[in-house]
Amino acid sequence: MHGTDRKYNDYKELIEQHLLDCLPEIDQKSITVYDAMKYSLSSGGGKRLRPVLLLASCEFCGGDINMALPYALAIEYIHTYSLIHDDLPAMDNDDIRRGVPTNHKVFGEAVAILAGDGLLSTAFEAMNKDMLLYFDDAGCLKCRVKASYEIAKGAGCRGMIAGQISDIELASKNVSNELLEYIHVNKTAALIVAATRAGAHLGKADESTLRNLTDYAENLGLAFQICDDILDAESNKDKCNYVTSNGLEKSKKRVLELTDNAFQIMAPYYDNAEFFNKLANNLAVRVK
Amino acid sequence: MHGTDRKYNDYKELIEQHLLDCLPEIDQKSITVYDAMKYSLSSGGGKRLRPVLLLASCEFCGGDINMALPYALAIEYIHTYSLIHDDLPAMDNDDIRRGVPTNHKVFGEAVAILAGDGLLSTAFEAMNKDMLLYFDDAGCLKCRVKASYEIAKGAGCRGMIAGQISDIELASKNVSNELLEYIHVNKTAALIVAATRAGAHLGKADESTLRNLTDYAENLGLAFQICDDILDAESNKDKCNYVTSNGLEKSKKRVLELTDNAFQIMAPYYDNAEFFNKLANNLAVRVK
Repeated sequence: MHGTDRKYNDYKELIEQHLLDCLPEIDQKSITVYDAMKYSLSSGGGKRLRPVLLLASCEFCGGDINMALPYALAIEYIHTYSLIHDDLPAMDNDDIRRGVPTNHKVFGEAVAILAGDGLLSTAFEAMNKDMLLYFDDAGCLKCRVKASYEIAKGAGCRGMIAGQISDIELASKNVSNELLEYIHVNKTAALIVAATRAGAHLGKADESTLRNLTDYAENLGLAFQICDDILDAESNKDKCNYVTSNGLEKSKKRVLELTDNAFQIMAPYYDNAEFFNKLANNLAVRVK
Repeated sequence: MHGTDRKYNDYKELIEQHLLDCLPEIDQKSITVYDAMKYSLSSGGGKRLRPVLLLASCEFCGGDINMALPYALAIEYIHTYSLIHDDLPAMDNDDIRRGVPTNHKVFGEAVAILAGDGLLSTAFEAMNKDMLLYFDDAGCLKCRVKASYEIAKGAGCRGMIAGQISDIELASKNVSNELLEYIHVNKTAALIVAATRAGAHLGKADESTLRNLTDYAENLGLAFQICDDILDAESNKDKCNYVTSNGLEKSKKRVLELTDNAFQIMAPYYDNAEFFNKLANNLAVRVK
C-alpha cells in the first residue's frame, strides 16, 4: 500500500473509531433523533475527507491529532448535516446516498430535518465543550477558538450555505463559469478550506504556513467539486454544472491545472508535504 | 408605564436596533438566503424573551449589556431558526406566524430550510467572532466560551431538539404529564435557561447566583410553555398538550405554582430582583 494512502487510512480509521464520541448522551425519550444522526454519520462509503484534512493539517504544523479530534468530528457532523438537508424532497430530493436510503427515506422528513439541525448544533456543542478543558492554557484555548471560528465561517452564509442557496437558485439556468466557480468555492471548497485552516490553527501554524495551506485547500476544494461534476456527467446525471457548461475535456484540464497549483504551493515543504501532494493527485484521478 | 415593563422594552429596543448586526455580509449572488433570514428575524410581534433574559441576567450580575449583544442576538437567531423549521410542511405545517406568512410560504421550502440552517450557523459564527476580540483578556474570553457553550447545549440534542423530536413523536398520542413536562422543559425551557445562564456567565456571576438564576429560568420556562398551551386551548387549537391532559383549571394552577417558585427563588435579592419577579408575573398573565 502506498505511504500516503496508508496515512490517509490511518487518519480515517481514527475518525471512524471515534465518530460517535461527540454525540451527546441522549435521553431514551428522544432516541429517534440520535438514531437518525448516527445513521447518516455511519452509513458507509464516506471519504471523511474534511476531518482527514483537518488532522493532516494539524499534524503537518506540529500539533497532536488526538487533541484535534473534537474539531475533526465537528466538521464531519457539519458535512453530514448538509448532506441530510441537501437530500430532502424540497432540495435535491434524493432517495439514495452512498448506496443506502437517504435519511428522510428511513426516518421521515421531520426527523431528517431535526437530525440535520441536531448534527449542526452538536458540532458546536462539541467544540465548545472541548474549549472548556483549556481554561488553564491560554495558548491552546485561543487556537481552539480560532479553529471553531474557521469552521463556523466555512459552514455559514458566506461559506457552504451561500453555495447551496446559489446552487438552488441557479440549477435550472445557464450560468457563467464565474458564477459556477462561486457556487463551487462556497458549496464545497469553503468547508474543505475551513477544515484545513482549523487544523493549522490547532497545530499552531505560523502565518506563512497558514496561508499556504489555505491556498492549497482552495485549489484542492475546487478541483474536488469539478471532479464530482465530471463523475456526475459521466454517469449521465442531468444537472447544470461545470461540465455541462465547459465540456468534459476543458473540465478535466481545469482539474489538472488546480491540482498542479496545489502541488506548486506545497512544493517548498519538500517531503513533509508528500501527503498533501498525493492527496491532491488521488482526488483528481478518483472514480467515485 | 410600569418600571419593569419599561426595562423590558429598553432591552427589547436595544435588541431590535441591533438585530441584523451579526448577520454576515452577503454576496449579492446569495442574497435570497439573507432576505429570508431577515424576514423571519424582523417579522413583527416577537417578544424577544430569550435575548431580553440574557441581557437582564448579565446586567443583574454586574455585566455590560452592550458587550453581551452578540450572544443575545445569537440566541434570537437560534430561536428564529427553530420557528422557521417548526413551521415547515413536514413539521407543524403552519402558514401564518405572528400574523404574517411563514418563511416557506414566502420563499419556498428549500430556501426556508437553508435560512434556518443559516441562522443557526450565523449564531455560532457571531459568538465565535466576538471571542476573537478577547484574546488579551483571559477572564472575558472564558466567560464568552462558557456563554456560547450554554447556548449550544440549550439548542442541541439534550435541549431544544430533544423537545422537538419527542413533540413530533408524541403529538398524536396520549402522554403522561411526566413526558409532557420533559417535552416542555426541553422544547421551550432549555433555551430560556440557556439564555439566562449565558447572561449570568457574561456578567461573571458567582456560583450561587448562577444556580438561583438557573432555577428561576427553569420555573419561568415551564410556566411560559404551559401558558402557551392554555392560550392554544382557549383559541381551540387541536393539539395534545398540557391543557388537554390536565384541564384548564389545573394548568392555570400549575402556572401560578411555577411563577411562585420563580418568585421565591429570587426573593433573597430584594429590589434587585424586581425585573425578574415582574417578568414571571407578566408572562403568567399574558394573553398572547
